[in-house]
Amino acid sequence: MTYTAPTTEQLFVLNHIGRIDAMAAHERFAAATPDMVEAIVTGIGDFAAEVYAPLNRVGDTSNPKWQDGRVTMPPGFKEAYKQFVEAGWGTIDGPGEYGGQDLPFTLATVVIEALGSADMGFTLCNILTPGAIHALMAYGTEAQRATWLPKLISGEWNGTMNLTEPSAGSDVGALRTTAEKVAEGPNAGLYKIKGQKIFITFGEHDLTDNIVHLVLARTPGAPEGTRGISLFLVPKYRLDAEGNPTISNGVHCASIEHKLGIHGSPTAVMVYGEGEDCLGEIVGEEMGGMRAMFVMMNNARLMVGCQGVQIAERATQQAQRYAAERVQSALAGSPDRSPVTIDRHPDVRRMLWRMRAQTEAARALVYYAAAQIDFGKLGDEAAAMRAEVLIPLVKAHATDIGCEVASLGVQVHGGMGFIEETGAAQHYRDARIAPIYEGTNGIQAADLVGRKLGMAGSDLIRGLIDDIAHGAGDFPELQQLADACRAVTDWMVSAGTADRLAGSYPYLTMLATATCGWLMALQHRAARAALGEGGDTAFLEAKIASTRFYLQQIVPAATGLAPAALAGDAALPPLPEIA
Amino acid sequence: MTYTAPTTEQLFVLNHIGRIDAMAAHERFAAATPDMVEAIVTGIGDFAAEVYAPLNRVGDTSNPKWQDGRVTMPPGFKEAYKQFVEAGWGTIDGPGEYGGQDLPFTLATVVIEALGSADMGFTLCNILTPGAIHALMAYGTEAQRATWLPKLISGEWNGTMNLTEPSAGSDVGALRTTAEKVAEGPNAGLYKIKGQKIFITFGEHDLTDNIVHLVLARTPGAPEGTRGISLFLVPKYRLDAEGNPTISNGVHCASIEHKLGIHGSPTAVMVYGEGEDCLGEIVGEEMGGMRAMFVMMNNARLMVGCQGVQIAERATQQAQRYAAERVQSALAGSPDRSPVTIDRHPDVRRMLWRMRAQTEAARALVYYAAAQIDFGKLGDEAAAMRAEVLIPLVKAHATDIGCEVASLGVQVHGGMGFIEETGAAQHYRDARIAPIYEGTNGIQAADLVGRKLGMAGSDLIRGLIDDIAHGAGDFPELQQLADACRAVTDWMVSAGTADRLAGSYPYLTMLATATCGWLMALQHRAARAALGEGGDTAFLEAKIASTRFYLQQIVPAATGLAPAALAGDAALPPLPEIA
Repeated sequence: MTYTAPTTEQLFVLNHIGRIDAMAAHERFAAATPDMVEAIVTGIGDFAAEVYAPLNRVGDTSNPKWQDGRVTMPPGFKEAYKQFVEAGWGTIDGPGEYGGQDLPFTLATVVIEALGSADMGFTLCNILTPGAIHALMAYGTEAQRATWLPKLISGEWNGTMNLTEPSAGSDVGALRTTAEKVAEGPNAGLYKIKGQKIFITFGEHDLTDNIVHLVLARTPGAPEGTRGISLFLVPKYRLDAEGNPTISNGVHCASIEHKLGIHGSPTAVMVYGEGEDCLGEIVGEEMGGMRAMFVMMNNARLMVGCQGVQIAERATQQAQRYAAERVQSALAGSPDRSPVTIDRHPDVRRMLWRMRAQTEAARALVYYAAAQIDFGKLGDEAAAMRAEVLIPLVKAHATDIGCEVASLGVQVHGGMGFIEETGAAQHYRDARIAPIYEGTNGIQAADLVGRKLGMAGSDLIRGLIDDIAHGAGDFPELQQLADACRAVTDWMVSAGTADRLAGSYPYLTMLATATCGWLMALQHRAARAALGEGGDTAFLEAKIASTRFYLQQIVPAATGLAPAALAGDAALPPLPEIA
Repeated sequence: MTYTAPTTEQLFVLNHIGRIDAMAAHERFAAATPDMVEAIVTGIGDFAAEVYAPLNRVGDTSNPKWQDGRVTMPPGFKEAYKQFVEAGWGTIDGPGEYGGQDLPFTLATVVIEALGSADMGFTLCNILTPGAIHALMAYGTEAQRATWLPKLISGEWNGTMNLTEPSAGSDVGALRTTAEKVAEGPNAGLYKIKGQKIFITFGEHDLTDNIVHLVLARTPGAPEGTRGISLFLVPKYRLDAEGNPTISNGVHCASIEHKLGIHGSPTAVMVYGEGEDCLGEIVGEEMGGMRAMFVMMNNARLMVGCQGVQIAERATQQAQRYAAERVQSALAGSPDRSPVTIDRHPDVRRMLWRMRAQTEAARALVYYAAAQIDFGKLGDEAAAMRAEVLIPLVKAHATDIGCEVASLGVQVHGGMGFIEETGAAQHYRDARIAPIYEGTNGIQAADLVGRKLGMAGSDLIRGLIDDIAHGAGDFPELQQLADACRAVTDWMVSAGTADRLAGSYPYLTMLATATCGWLMALQHRAARAALGEGGDTAFLEAKIASTRFYLQQIVPAATGLAPAALAGDAALPPLPEIA
């Protein structure tokens, strides 16, 4: 149950898909020299393997403990998190004026990937803090930034996202938490927050001496729905005159959930302002909450897509190691009757190559999307818009891949895979949350055929398909899938809302697979070229095989989804009642 | 978390796919009158819902307890099992001379389906006993049958299958357990069994006062591999002169496993003949063990396929009930801004219809295969051979469906699906074992492209494809899939062993989906006809919708697997070493 960061692969994708060299050509990211990039990728790989990976099973079996409104993490987590902070791993893409390193977000994504492969549940603590940072950078006042950013960027304090309430899940606009402005006195201008939030990841824990909650709430008289929502920064402890978090703020954890997986991540029910005043600062303007939240959500959605990569990588490594050691049965049709390691049996090899190809495809998709966000920051508007289209693909498809690969990982282990001590089962359980939170994958599909399809009169999506088709090269399977995507897009554009939604999920899978296929084809050609120039032969030959597997075996299956994407709402009548 | 047996659906499939009326036309199954069939299907549905279903979560959370070599089931299980025995639910297809009802095996399959939907883990106890019965019917002596069958058929004693050892999993022939014939004395003719078996389902428990282990072992001097294996009947307690199980027999449970799911089913490490003699009776001839075991395995493989149906049905019901109650968001594009139950949102409807269609397809496949076994007993040799081809499809594909549907069930619940108390997560965990045990699904695919493809010079498989193509009717999607299956079959026949195996899994999925598509098309036409004759409108309209969904949305995706089936072994080079 060890983890070794795939640094050669990560650097290859950073270079050929992320185009990190093109970023470093700009002054803003000039620090991202090849040496620096390699130092970060190998450094975080070592750190994740040594410090985070050993905690993965501890977190699974020794859950965080809730008592009297406070949560204690299992042994070892506090120390590991302290090392993360001290090594500065949280600061990669933070702004320099607040203690960040001003490096590309794409590199921060690699940092999170490595940590999350080592321990997906624990790393959730590191995933939501950047969202809070981005919201403050985009909408915070200068005073707010100066107060909160340095400790959020260092990781000394963590950030949370508080959207969900019992009756407001996918429908954020239905939330009921209230925020009432304090008119006078020492707290004038602050807001009294009152309400309950559920499913708050790392909403309460003992890793840090403060927690910065970003909370959506409704001011008095605000209109119904998302238009009436404002965003508030609500600390676990208010700061005293010296800036230390010493003042109780009426933030209470009522319980934590008993979950299928990610046991190492406390999922909290948070109660604000019950029995004691809870004060929050508004971030941005009143009724501007959803806009500010979208800044956090885009980031969080890409990070959740990255979790698909994390768990797929970890599951693939474990399965490949097991298959290379487990001896069972002679090769069928071979005159030699000695049993061999199971990775020599064709169907086991098929599973392992599928796991590898899917993991690499998901990684390429995540890095590509992260890079488009970085290029957007460098002024490339087309890249920024491309990122908008990619976000739902990354979130939904990479997390679907995480589940599929984790399930194959169990299968490769045979009966041992079903025994908890083996560890493969934990990946299968952990992976399952990612298609659900930060907007279910169905919500992503709705976003794709709704807001994203509508952007620039569908030209954003058509532009992506054109790039895919042009990049198909000598893979006719990809050309066919691109053609199918184009045909479905034509239909979607003229279809009614319900018809579009009825086909949204298969359409998303087609488009995501086509995008991955394109990125795999790019890597296929890059690997062939590098092989001719004397690169790392074992890695490049494996890359050629995995990309070919993806293009020849996974891409054609996605083309087969076109009829489902085109079936329309009439194919889905109301369901009959059941007793 | 309730369960209601889908009796209308079960009767419809029994009639139109199982052709239970054609069975009842034979004297042997004359008892299977329409009234009797309906009484059994509704009776077991009520029993399963009332007696077994309430235990499902109990078994998940209060595991069986191991102490000093003995296992105690959680509260309530012993009483429920006693009711199962007393109601005679184990006796359906048992031979009349030993207390059975001489009814079709297909009906016994419906009994197991209902019990397993109510509690999959618990019902494992009822699944393996028939295997022991069949082995004794096929190879036991008259004395053995008289001694053991009545209590196995009533369920007073349960049967187990003991194949696996630490180094002999998929490779049964590698087993090391020994059996040495006793030459003289009161036990002359019996065998001393010595060895360890792992992963023994219900190998030890307190539901019955004896357990009948069917154990594969090797006699002295026996050749290596499966040719040297014999089958032994090894009771937990030997019988005294009155036939009561009172004499200790050196059978010991060393531990039970900590598993991902089916917690209600104790998975035992069994030790035979350690410190105390363990005596077994040979079943059949020395070295005839594998032949006898195949009788048990075919039955068990169909029953495991049935578990796919069980868990899919349970997960579908739970998701549909939740979606019909959970209110969230207004319909997109609707002028009415009131939130609706989520089963009205198109993508949730897509998930629910997919769950329903896949569940119905798996059920049709299982009942069809069971019926072919019954028709085989009635002398229809073609049906018996058809069953041979169907077994790997049923085992592998129905269990894959079980996993997919259980996963969709979690997704429909959103965040609540990830909370253990909701119950959807248990189905996701329970379902995952079925693709592994009784021969991994990869082993099923190897069986399909090996032994089954070779039967009658590939004519068995070609005959199935011809039936599918003829039955496609006005579903061109099914015709296309049948054509693709034929093309892959042509390639498989001339391909080498490694190439066949490399494509075996996608080929199995294609052939299984085509077979399900055919059975769904038959039902589609039957439902249309019945609707015209004034049948149960709600049920028939749902059947028309689910079968159309399957044929138009699921069948075309399977056609997309053809390139993977044809890719060959060269597409799967050895994997690179990882650190």
